[in-house]
Amino acid sequence: MEGVSREEALPCLLKCVASKEVAGFDSIECGTGVSSQAQLAAATNWQGETAGGKEHGDAYGHLPADAISIPVNSALQHDTNLSYSIPKSLPASPYGFHVLQIESGPNEMAPPVLQSANSAAVELEQPKQAKLRSQPIPLGKSRRDSGIDNQRDKRFDPFKTWSGRFERQLSSLRGIPQEHDGEANDGCIVEVEPLPAVDRYFDALEGPELDTLRVSEVSVLPEDKKWPFLLRFPISAFGMCLGVGSQAILWKTLATSPSVGFLHVSLTVNLVLWCMSLVLVSTVSLIYACKIIFYFEAVRREYDHPVRGNFFFAPWIACLFLVQGVPPSVAEKPPTALWYALMAPIFCLEVKVYGQWMSGGQRRLSKVANPSNHLSIVGNFVGALAGASMGLREGPIFFFAVGLAHYTVLFVTLYQRLPTNVTLPKELHPVFFLFVAAPSVASMAWATINGYFDYGSRIAYFVALFLYFSLAVRINLFRGLRFSLAWWAYTFPTTGFSIATIRYSKEVTNAFTQALSVGFSAISTFTVTALLVSTIVHAFVLRDLFPNDISIAITRKGPTSSKPVAPLRSINSTMKGRETLEI
Amino acid sequence: MEGVSREEALPCLLKCVASKEVAGFDSIECGTGVSSQAQLAAATNWQGETAGGKEHGDAYGHLPADAISIPVNSALQHDTNLSYSIPKSLPASPYGFHVLQIESGPNEMAPPVLQSANSAAVELEQPKQAKLRSQPIPLGKSRRDSGIDNQRDKRFDPFKTWSGRFERQLSSLRGIPQEHDGEANDGCIVEVEPLPAVDRYFDALEGPELDTLRVSEVSVLPEDKKWPFLLRFPISAFGMCLGVGSQAILWKTLATSPSVGFLHVSLTVNLVLWCMSLVLVSTVSLIYACKIIFYFEAVRREYDHPVRGNFFFAPWIACLFLVQGVPPSVAEKPPTALWYALMAPIFCLEVKVYGQWMSGGQRRLSKVANPSNHLSIVGNFVGALAGASMGLREGPIFFFAVGLAHYTVLFVTLYQRLPTNVTLPKELHPVFFLFVAAPSVASMAWATINGYFDYGSRIAYFVALFLYFSLAVRINLFRGLRFSLAWWAYTFPTTGFSIATIRYSKEVTNAFTQALSVGFSAISTFTVTALLVSTIVHAFVLRDLFPNDISIAITRKGPTSSKPVAPLRSINSTMKGRETLEI
Amino acid sequence: MEGVSREEALPCLLKCVASKEVAGFDSIECGTGVSSQAQLAAATNWQGETAGGKEHGDAYGHLPADAISIPVNSALQHDTNLSYSIPKSLPASPYGFHVLQIESGPNEMAPPVLQSANSAAVELEQPKQAKLRSQPIPLGKSRRDSGIDNQRDKRFDPFKTWSGRFERQLSSLRGIPQEHDGEANDGCIVEVEPLPAVDRYFDALEGPELDTLRVSEVSVLPEDKKWPFLLRFPISAFGMCLGVGSQAILWKTLATSPSVGFLHVSLTVNLVLWCMSLVLVSTVSLIYACKIIFYFEAVRREYDHPVRGNFFFAPWIACLFLVQGVPPSVAEKPPTALWYALMAPIFCLEVKVYGQWMSGGQRRLSKVANPSNHLSIVGNFVGALAGASMGLREGPIFFFAVGLAHYTVLFVTLYQRLPTNVTLPKELHPVFFLFVAAPSVASMAWATINGYFDYGSRIAYFVALFLYFSLAVRINLFRGLRFSLAWWAYTFPTTGFSIATIRYSKEVTNAFTQALSVGFSAISTFTVTALLVSTIVHAFVLRDLFPNDISIAITRKGPTSSKPVAPLRSINSTMKGRETLEI
Repeated sequence: MEGVSREEALPCLLKCVASKEVAGFDSIECGTGVSSQAQLAAATNWQGETAGGKEHGDAYGHLPADAISIPVNSALQHDTNLSYSIPKSLPASPYGFHVLQIESGPNEMAPPVLQSANSAAVELEQPKQAKLRSQPIPLGKSRRDSGIDNQRDKRFDPFKTWSGRFERQLSSLRGIPQEHDGEANDGCIVEVEPLPAVDRYFDALEGPELDTLRVSEVSVLPEDKKWPFLLRFPISAFGMCLGVGSQAILWKTLATSPSVGFLHVSLTVNLVLWCMSLVLVSTVSLIYACKIIFYFEAVRREYDHPVRGNFFFAPWIACLFLVQGVPPSVAEKPPTALWYALMAPIFCLEVKVYGQWMSGGQRRLSKVANPSNHLSIVGNFVGALAGASMGLREGPIFFFAVGLAHYTVLFVTLYQRLPTNVTLPKELHPVFFLFVAAPSVASMAWATINGYFDYGSRIAYFVALFLYFSLAVRINLFRGLRFSLAWWAYTFPTTGFSIATIRYSKEVTNAFTQALSVGFSAISTFTVTALLVSTIVHAFVLRDLFPNDISIAITRKGPTSSKPVAPLRSINSTMKGRETLEI
Repeated sequence: MEGVSREEALPCLLKCVASKEVAGFDSIECGTGVSSQAQLAAATNWQGETAGGKEHGDAYGHLPADAISIPVNSALQHDTNLSYSIPKSLPASPYGFHVLQIESGPNEMAPPVLQSANSAAVELEQPKQAKLRSQPIPLGKSRRDSGIDNQRDKRFDPFKTWSGRFERQLSSLRGIPQEHDGEANDGCIVEVEPLPAVDRYFDALEGPELDTLRVSEVSVLPEDKKWPFLLRFPISAFGMCLGVGSQAILWKTLATSPSVGFLHVSLTVNLVLWCMSLVLVSTVSLIYACKIIFYFEAVRREYDHPVRGNFFFAPWIACLFLVQGVPPSVAEKPPTALWYALMAPIFCLEVKVYGQWMSGGQRRLSKVANPSNHLSIVGNFVGALAGASMGLREGPIFFFAVGLAHYTVLFVTLYQRLPTNVTLPKELHPVFFLFVAAPSVASMAWATINGYFDYGSRIAYFVALFLYFSLAVRINLFRGLRFSLAWWAYTFPTTGFSIATIRYSKEVTNAFTQALSVGFSAISTFTVTALLVSTIVHAFVLRDLFPNDISIAITRKGPTSSKPVAPLRSINSTMKGRETLEI
Repeated sequence: MEGVSREEALPCLLKCVASKEVAGFDSIECGTGVSSQAQLAAATNWQGETAGGKEHGDAYGHLPADAISIPVNSALQHDTNLSYSIPKSLPASPYGFHVLQIESGPNEMAPPVLQSANSAAVELEQPKQAKLRSQPIPLGKSRRDSGIDNQRDKRFDPFKTWSGRFERQLSSLRGIPQEHDGEANDGCIVEVEPLPAVDRYFDALEGPELDTLRVSEVSVLPEDKKWPFLLRFPISAFGMCLGVGSQAILWKTLATSPSVGFLHVSLTVNLVLWCMSLVLVSTVSLIYACKIIFYFEAVRREYDHPVRGNFFFAPWIACLFLVQGVPPSVAEKPPTALWYALMAPIFCLEVKVYGQWMSGGQRRLSKVANPSNHLSIVGNFVGALAGASMGLREGPIFFFAVGLAHYTVLFVTLYQRLPTNVTLPKELHPVFFLFVAAPSVASMAWATINGYFDYGSRIAYFVALFLYFSLAVRINLFRGLRFSLAWWAYTFPTTGFSIATIRYSKEVTNAFTQALSVGFSAISTFTVTALLVSTIVHAFVLRDLFPNDISIAITRKGPTSSKPVAPLRSINSTMKGRETLEI
């Protein structure tokens, strides 16, 4: 497996699924123009020459030197004549640098993003034309097209587990001595710690899911072409598993609950959904496992992402859904060992995440709280429900207690809308439906622990009901939103609430509760179906289900302020300084 | 009813009650001088002439052009000879304007509040003479005094439902084409949206109930004369209904509870108080209904007011008190339909209010939280109590659950005293007694739902007891406070707590709890009596029970910065800018 | 007792204990050099002459004039010729001041903290020598050494109850008329309110326990010598009582609980520990009582200290531990009157402390919240537990309810890590173990109130378990920390948690819970033993168990802003201003 090239490293089994699912799988397409303002900024930094730089400009294009380790040396090995010309020619003709410095003036904020070896070389070749702020060059002839192995796109290497690591080690071995060579070699300094600090995510990204690059930022990965599939496959894909898995439970409940017996729902629906769910969980897990193996750097960046990080609870919750929704024909009662196996990673993640909330670092709750944190809470209640269903008692109460304590904290914090909660979307957004998840599941969990739907369960259920209604009436939630895979995560709360309603109607059976059960079930099934259709359309028709995952491609240090960005940046940093001091 | 003039539009029934209660009902009295600094600022903006302007100065007095739509054209139609006389008389002594303009210099922030249509017109006709800076003219001879209909005070028209609307439409129809006439007609631009943004309430008002105009602000309604009664009748008048209604329940409880049977209280007291309460609720509701009909604009402004808005829960709570305190001789058991009818508006208000807390706009909880928010919580518990008393079960638990969840949020938020909670009074204030209301009523509600005063009820009761004691020992709460109608709202928590104490003493009957019951009941009855006397004194002796309701008369855009205010304002806006950016 | 001099005022009984425990008891040793940067600043302020000033420089050394009332007049009485020379010579020859200002130049660090009467006098006598920046003079020959009464160290007088008060009264009697004598007498103005404002504690101190003086600050008490023992004896010494007292309960529980019966623990351990605990509580109480009597000023400053103030709950909690851990051989059942006697002061303190949280002053919760606040919560649960063990019911529920409500508030607030919580340690710290205390004790209290370890108790217990685990895995908590007496307070939560575990294992008896019981008991006993050894080493070997208690020696007004500090300070004050305005 390691013999094949990395982009093609997916096992055959996977490939036949994934490549069917997503056209353009592993193909790298060329962008043809300036796609965003951010890119424009990047482009103006590029001091390449217009005419002759096309062939080698490709590989070094938009990578800011200080953002990520550029395997300069190894990359340059491909064209030995070029790479060796740098050290020799630099001392001889520093003219290009001089011109550049005059141009940027005494207030230059940050010496050239691309005062890297190659740009310097370019300038040396044609010093006069180097001043031309060239149009971005159509970059990235894909490796497949050219068919030549030594022209494969190396810009993704820093995210690769092996190539990146080895080349980085190699570079740093060579890079460190070069640091002492003086200013001229600044561009060659290789960063050995490419992981951005947490604050960078807040600074560089925006949007309710922190998935859009700010205008002032540049991406470390090329924005003009499609990345390798694995790099574009986000952890939030597990949201699909949550959505379908919860539907399987819903239909199991609809089929078995006496209060909605008049619907005569067959258990077959549950079986079908459960199988779908099982396939989905397996597929997504397998693909993500590959991502962990081959692009560990990218996974780390997802884990560090303030919103995305919460989705790391999703795989385990999805498995718990599988356990909970298992058709009676498949297994009457799942083994309790499974429960312990699934709760262990949830527990570890919680110790990590809740500890970060409390410990005063960059991830303290007054800073990161946002509705997606509910994913890190709801695992407790789902676990408690699953455990109690299996007949366990102390374990479920433990997770219920942990969930309750932290849910109180999160609920209060989110409701308060502290102005310091930078990741909390300014306006309401479908992500707020996650609010409904925790009390819905908590009511069921408590009812299962307790043996019946007592006052405690009802309080939790009614809180969920109120929140559901309160969100549902705000129509403006649903306007002007573009589809994203993360939406799946926002459907499982409504499904969970439907299940809780059926459970409640079992306790209080009357026309009203039965109508509620049917109504909410219909809504949730409709939502999931609509989303499924959207997903299929996006996957096979529009072929944009997995766009470039900009969230993980932020630079480590913030925009290396070229001129026009500079004033903005200084304001920014002043503000940040003040924030640190004051708030 | 629409044939009569608006100020006299109260139905006869009402009039006989209200005019007895408040002398000066509907009469508009003249102020005679400059009453406050804010007014001084407004006054200097008034560019009328000293001698001849008295008669017609009345109608255009203190209305800043940019704050509210001035129905200039329609107003001028009433006396064409008069309206055209203005431009003629002004030119005779335009000296003041010149002085003013020199003084304000090239950086003048806002050219005269009243460079509105008429003053602008004046300048165009005789530009040189437009400059006299006159002393403020004693304005506002009331319409009644003069007895001439076309001289009625039109300054209140913008708040009127019909006159305002029609005239505004008329003005805007005429005003819009005028906008293209150039700068000279700037004053003619008619504001079609006269409702201030939420932030304006925080900026323009101060005091624990946000009912005092800041020095830098001007009122859109004349501060020098009494406004029409309906405009001065605030929603907080329902506080009286809460106070008397809760007393009716207290005396019913005292008469029927075995633990205080040794007092031999007669149910007649309950009957009398209940009838008083019924009359009060009817009267206040009727008057407020008239306000809704005739001054809808004013009601909207009250509803938008961050503190006052919470009082919109009061009418429904007062009705629930009536239901709860109904004497056994009147009705053994009220119909449950009544409960649903009363809870529906409470539910709708809650969906609105709690949604605003969460949704990140200007009314988010970390900004608006203040003790009067308890009014929006306590309705849940009162509703739960009333419903459970009627024998309902799920509905009461629903409201109990919603109340509990949001009470937790509010309790934590208020206790934290976030520095961003701008409406929270700096120091303790009687409004803090509202803290006692929710847990008191919650303990009774839970006891009624549950069938007995269990541990849960006791926990709620003891929390109320601690808070009551904690507030009561802080003597400085009670110093230096002037009477206001809002005080009534602060008495019902003590009454509610007394009832809870009696309820508790029924469960734990001993000398100590009986003493507590008697003691707290005595305190609450004494408080209510004292307040009743104060209210009567203020209503009939001092005749200032309903002062001008400054809270609703703030301008839409902030002070139209005259010179001395300007530096202050720029600091202010800088700070606000920063707040938005940073916090 | 009042006949003896104050430093020797400890009763004989105490002395024999305390002087054995701490060598250097009551002796005042001389520092010999500059010990810290703060002291350096203080030292350069001292404008004494090298040769002749020794004798009287002693007494006035490091007391900044504006920080604390200097009993100038009474002090000067000793040398009447000197004191009378001041008013006369000052106007005549301002030369000394002039010289001083030239010399200190534009960068002078701190103009004369001691431009007090005596230093001025010194300079006037020998203006030329005054310019010599002398090395700090070895100050403070102890009164014992010299044996002359009028040379005893008067720098501690302001903290003394009687000498301080009398002399201050005397000074103020004389000082007030002198205020009218003009500027020359500025130094003589006597401060009558020597207590620093709360904000000063935040400004002047740093560290997780606010026990380290900031660099820019000076101490009002000499930092170069050991203070009188009582001044160095902090309220946090009661932490030892908590630690040993809780161990006594643990071993009682180990001896009596059937679930750990296999350990065959003897009740003798409980008896021994209880006696130790009794002796410790008595000793510490007695010493602290002496501090209250003789250094009331110091006690007030400890009470006002945002962190230290919470330790005023410790004595009563320690007594409750004694009651709870009483060996069956000593008393079968303690009298309930004892419970009321102990809960009364806790209740009073709570009314005070919680009221401050809510009331919007400098001690509002969003400002002061820090883990040591748990001490003010845990008293409720300990009280509830002790009361319920005695067979009481309503009282314990009352305290349980108060504790629950305020614990919720504190838990949420601490978990949120509001950026305004200035006393919350930046990073995790052993003080966070106090998090475990409240839920542990609450679970036991609820179980005792309720009669068995129900779901409520389990939820509390499991929350404690999660928090314990979450803190224990963070190894970096335990690095780089220096021993302090306060550590004792952080051991009782682990002991409390062990007891709760045993209690839980009584309900759910299996190998796992038994192992947990034994394990956690071992850890807590080991921790306490280790701490005991450390304490003994520090007390008798290193003799630094009670270092100078800098926390109480902050000046009232902040550094007397000399030039270079000024810009810093102005930024500071600007920031504070902004904070007040914005946040």
